[in-house]
Amino acid sequence: MKDNERYERGWNKLKEIDDKAGENIINSLKDIAPDFARYVIEFPFGDVFSRPGLDLKSREIAIVAALTAMGNAASQLKFHIHGALNVGCTRKEIVEVIMQMAVYAGFPAALNGLSAAKEVFKERDDSGKS
Amino acid sequence: MKDNERYERGWNKLKEIDDKAGENIINSLKDIAPDFARYVIEFPFGDVFSRPGLDLKSREIAIVAALTAMGNAASQLKFHIHGALNVGCTRKEIVEVIMQMAVYAGFPAALNGLSAAKEVFKERDDSGKS
Amino acid sequence: MKDNERYERGWNKLKEIDDKAGENIINSLKDIAPDFARYVIEFPFGDVFSRPGLDLKSREIAIVAALTAMGNAASQLKFHIHGALNVGCTRKEIVEVIMQMAVYAGFPAALNGLSAAKEVFKERDDSGKS
Amino acid sequence: MKDNERYERGWNKLKEIDDKAGENIINSLKDIAPDFARYVIEFPFGDVFSRPGLDLKSREIAIVAALTAMGNAASQLKFHIHGALNVGCTRKEIVEVIMQMAVYAGFPAALNGLSAAKEVFKERDDSGKS
Amino acid sequence: MKDNERYERGWNKLKEIDDKAGENIINSLKDIAPDFARYVIEFPFGDVFSRPGLDLKSREIAIVAALTAMGNAASQLKFHIHGALNVGCTRKEIVEVIMQMAVYAGFPAALNGLSAAKEVFKERDDSGKS
Amino acid sequence: MKDNERYERGWNKLKEIDDKAGENIINSLKDIAPDFARYVIEFPFGDVFSRPGLDLKSREIAIVAALTAMGNAASQLKFHIHGALNVGCTRKEIVEVIMQMAVYAGFPAALNGLSAAKEVFKERDDSGKS
Repeated sequence: MKDNERYERGWNKLKEIDDKAGENIINSLKDIAPDFARYVIEFPFGDVFSRPGLDLKSREIAIVAALTAMGNAASQLKFHIHGALNVGCTRKEIVEVIMQMAVYAGFPAALNGLSAAKEVFKERDDSGKS
Repeated sequence: MKDNERYERGWNKLKEIDDKAGENIINSLKDIAPDFARYVIEFPFGDVFSRPGLDLKSREIAIVAALTAMGNAASQLKFHIHGALNVGCTRKEIVEVIMQMAVYAGFPAALNGLSAAKEVFKERDDSGKS
Repeated sequence: MKDNERYERGWNKLKEIDDKAGENIINSLKDIAPDFARYVIEFPFGDVFSRPGLDLKSREIAIVAALTAMGNAASQLKFHIHGALNVGCTRKEIVEVIMQMAVYAGFPAALNGLSAAKEVFKERDDSGKS
Repeated sequence: MKDNERYERGWNKLKEIDDKAGENIINSLKDIAPDFARYVIEFPFGDVFSRPGLDLKSREIAIVAALTAMGNAASQLKFHIHGALNVGCTRKEIVEVIMQMAVYAGFPAALNGLSAAKEVFKERDDSGKS
Repeated sequence: MKDNERYERGWNKLKEIDDKAGENIINSLKDIAPDFARYVIEFPFGDVFSRPGLDLKSREIAIVAALTAMGNAASQLKFHIHGALNVGCTRKEIVEVIMQMAVYAGFPAALNGLSAAKEVFKERDDSGKS
Repeated sequence: MKDNERYERGWNKLKEIDDKAGENIINSLKDIAPDFARYVIEFPFGDVFSRPGLDLKSREIAIVAALTAMGNAASQLKFHIHGALNVGCTRKEIVEVIMQMAVYAGFPAALNGLSAAKEVFKERDDSGKS
């Protein structure tokens, strides 16, 4: 398998999750770490997300849970709440995943996760997305 | 709703996840914090796990992901890998959830999560569980 | 014990800590997770904070310490610095608790905790609170 | 103030918290980082713990809370549960502090904190300490 | 050794890392915790940073790595990216250190570290620093 | 570039850091997640560690710092203390890196890091390594 197959597969997987994400990552990193943009596309999306054995919706549930629990990556959490909704999770499911984290990472983590979800839902309402 | 309804509902939900867990929690806490055993049954299991809106399998995926990412609760991670398998996740799905965490919490977190999974799978092989 | 006893006890305890907090929690969650607002009032405040065996001031010292050390819940830290002062801690005691965290969670955690305290003290000066 | 005043003050403060701790720290670090043993005595104990403005019991409550919440320093948590008891906290107060952490850092953190407390209480029972 | 020797040594070391840092720390803490400003200068800079056995550039690499991985101290991370550049690291080396953290603490930690670096590089471009 | 070039490069880089590590990773994961063993070799070692722009010694200093600060990956910390020594760090430098973490992640993190270092140094003494 050639390396550009990983990149293409990652690019397409990323597009499934968020239509603009590929371009955004490349733009935000082009002046400082262009290779890292390539890694982001190749490894997380080309290698890991593209694996069989777990559907994309379950992967996004796992990620929203983990980022809510860790509580130190607000921007990536919002990205993956969008992503989860884009691949078929309902808003209700997202809220349940985040509430579940109150048990495992504490109420502040869950409250901050719910704030992130509220912002994402507002952004989607404003642009007419479900 | 009476408080003992929350307890009963929690007890039954916990039994779905792990047959012996209720007794184990009560026994391990009876000398030091018996009220806390009651809270564990009432709030996480009676209130949160029992909510509609997200299936039990997805809840367990969220928890395995979060505990792998946090990396500081080995015993609870093993408990919920068992739980995830008991409510219908496959071993393959567990492994995928944990591998996904390499992207969000680093390779050491994923490697330690895979070690926990390996121990759980061995325990289940030894007692003839899938 | 009925469930609404837990809610009432939690509501009253929360009022002791911060006069407006109950309403604020309900308002901020009403569109996204109204049940979670109820849980916040019932479990942390109705069950845990209301327990005998540890005075409210010591509970708030414990919380300010933990949130300073975790370093990922700025808004909740500010809430509990207000809360600690409302239930009888002095500003000096708050500062000592936060400085103590330099030893256990590092100087950045303590410096960020002191920034939060500085903001809280300013808010209280501006509204004439001690 | 001379530097050895900080050391002496720290040594005495440490002795108040745990009679053998000073020797243990020096012994465990003597082959690898003897200066670090000196720092431990001078800065945390000579500078911070010895400050007026917060009683020793409240400092230990803050530390037990923080170490329970962080969940990655089991040996230091046990040391400070001993310390808290040595400076006047009751076992009941320790249990309450740790249970309070379920709200702020999740149930696994509190359960692991209670396990640590249980070990400490057992050690003290075995050696006839309260 | 007198205590003011530690302070002076710390002050000079801090000046090597960032010309204005000493004044800034004193100013930001003077109303709330002036002793803590003194501790910051004495212990981290007077005691630890001033030790032989590891060059200043390697110390700053270690700190940028740790703060990127922890992900909860954005302002201190930016300070130490400046510091690392001031004591001889190249921008390229900083970027490599942060990218390396994707492996140990996850991609979000590395992406947030790169954002911090981008802001620092921009600030230095604007003020004509390398 | 073909994918097996990444694997070969990673394998060789890993051998520089630890002679047996490649085999150990493959063996420990072969029953549970053989693809993950391949990813470990390809991405961290084939892509990231193999980049120019930062020498291997500085990479290992960054990793020892980060794992000490995070405090939840004891086995990986020991692996990278060995690795740092294998690529040219002195024991003294390792000790300095870990002590530096007391400032950024607290004294317990540094003390636990020093314990890990002590075990590693003992293992190397026993097998005649520097």
